[in-house]
Amino acid sequence: MGETGRFITFEGIDGSGKSTQARALAERLTGAGREVVLTREPGGSPGAEEIRRLVLEGDPDRWSAETEILLFTAARRDHLEKTIRPALAAGKVVVCDRFADSTRVYQGITRGDLRRVVDALHALMIGREPDLTFVLDMPPGTGLARAKGRGGAEERFEDFGEGMQARMRAGFLDLAAEFPDRCRVVEADRAPAAVAAEIARLAEAELA
Amino acid sequence: MGETGRFITFEGIDGSGKSTQARALAERLTGAGREVVLTREPGGSPGAEEIRRLVLEGDPDRWSAETEILLFTAARRDHLEKTIRPALAAGKVVVCDRFADSTRVYQGITRGDLRRVVDALHALMIGREPDLTFVLDMPPGTGLARAKGRGGAEERFEDFGEGMQARMRAGFLDLAAEFPDRCRVVEADRAPAAVAAEIARLAEAELA
Repeated sequence: MGETGRFITFEGIDGSGKSTQARALAERLTGAGREVVLTREPGGSPGAEEIRRLVLEGDPDRWSAETEILLFTAARRDHLEKTIRPALAAGKVVVCDRFADSTRVYQGITRGDLRRVVDALHALMIGREPDLTFVLDMPPGTGLARAKGRGGAEERFEDFGEGMQARMRAGFLDLAAEFPDRCRVVEADRAPAAVAAEIARLAEAELA
Repeated sequence: MGETGRFITFEGIDGSGKSTQARALAERLTGAGREVVLTREPGGSPGAEEIRRLVLEGDPDRWSAETEILLFTAARRDHLEKTIRPALAAGKVVVCDRFADSTRVYQGITRGDLRRVVDALHALMIGREPDLTFVLDMPPGTGLARAKGRGGAEERFEDFGEGMQARMRAGFLDLAAEFPDRCRVVEADRAPAAVAAEIARLAEAELA
């Protein structure tokens, strides 16, 4: 594809500050003169947003884990085709709040042992991995309190309690160990500005 | 799963009479005292119908072939889990207007050479093949005239002209040759009652 841009993702448990830090990094890189596309999953393109609504609205039990993985993969494929790849081909930096690692942890670990299915679908239909992934790490109790304070339409993924949050935290740390070349674990239980400064330093080292 | 029912599908080009013949067979089998579930794809369960609407409404070019295959596979998985497998487990005969063979032909042949992707997704997420498939065969000009006379919301798949219909007809005949154990090619350019009689005879031989 002749991609000259860079693809940076943020991962971590709910309430760990992914959206805030993704926005802060996008602003920082824009201020430094780079062309940046800030996006998120699930969603990130008009078609993917429609699929996102289909998955997240209504009864949480209406889809099986397998059907949900297929729908998220369809949304990711659309997001990749319509938003991410064109931006990378134009030499831009794509900053994305969640990507395939979230599916690996949420669907692969928390909704039955479907990691093999998730990986096979990813290899077949997505392929692309980020160039750099920030894993925002914090104690699950802290993340849960932050996520609950925020509220919002996607509580279904946040309503699993502290035990589930602890398993997801461990899942993200395991992923960081599995993909050490692209993953940077950042201690996120600090003032947002301090977290942002560390992320900016790591990103600039990678983009230099 | 301990399935004791039988799974019968109808395939063929648009206008070949699949819906009419599926309904006729379902009525015939019901009249003979069997419990029958008549269903169709895309759709066939509430979730799959929602995905069907997402795929078929709006600009035909809004989804790439790959995203469309993922959405149809998600719909099929839901249809299989919610409608087909429960009926088969209860010993019923499931009669379905279109199933995976339609995806193999339409997406795999007519929208780029994606048969390998279609097959890999089917193996990973669906698995189940019909016990018996009727391939309704007729000259493409006849099918096209019938489909156009009927109209309806799904013209996008019928609006490819006679050349494409000819390729699809060949695709269905190739599939019948690929899966000879379960496929029966039925000459459908005849009076519907004559077609129905042949199908009933073949189905009863299989179900006996």
